[in-house]
Amino acid sequence: MSDVVDLAEKLRSFDATWSPRIVAVLNGQEVKVAKLEGEFVWHAHADEDELFLVVKGSLDLHLRDRVVHLEEGQLFVVPRGVEHKPVAPGECHVLLFEPAGVRNTGDATDDPRTVEGSDVPRI
Amino acid sequence: MSDVVDLAEKLRSFDATWSPRIVAVLNGQEVKVAKLEGEFVWHAHADEDELFLVVKGSLDLHLRDRVVHLEEGQLFVVPRGVEHKPVAPGECHVLLFEPAGVRNTGDATDDPRTVEGSDVPRI
Repeated sequence: MSDVVDLAEKLRSFDATWSPRIVAVLNGQEVKVAKLEGEFVWHAHADEDELFLVVKGSLDLHLRDRVVHLEEGQLFVVPRGVEHKPVAPGECHVLLFEPAGVRNTGDATDDPRTVEGSDVPRI
Repeated sequence: MSDVVDLAEKLRSFDATWSPRIVAVLNGQEVKVAKLEGEFVWHAHADEDELFLVVKGSLDLHLRDRVVHLEEGQLFVVPRGVEHKPVAPGECHVLLFEPAGVRNTGDATDDPRTVEGSDVPRI
């Protein structure tokens, strides 16, 4: 059986930004943590809604028609098919909730930070 | 499209304990918040894994063979079919991730705190 997951401890265990780590799996979904800083690539996930919960810092989720600003303790669901570009003005820690196997850059596979869902480490 | 969910604000909006509220829906799953205090009923969910993330206070998840203690920022997944009894020594606020439509008391439908999944309010 799975064990207790301490989010702060998991986030202390790596430094890489834009490099999500799986911390729990349930019902075909994955809970991930990630460190974000700076600007990511515009992308969309055709078949997956994606939840961002900020656990430290702040995050601007750029959508084509607005910017969703998230502070600690705030979450937002980017619906499937909706283009988005995460931008973190400083170091930002997030919890992600999405179906298992999602590619981090969605349809923007030419971005060098692309990580296939099957290659995301579980920590 | 969904809007920003501020977990603290959502939790300030109601007082009832053992009465989850839906704050987000994605990929057939629901994100809920709940206030817990005291002892719940032993139950299991036959087909659903259930994630508990403590956002305030602490929680003891009693399993038949051990007690899983969770503090703020810690999460645990109770696998489907596993009997559990949440016990909160003081007021505890949690975020829950689970498939849409789960009954809070699982197979323990004689508990008066039972809320059918279809009756859980979205706030």
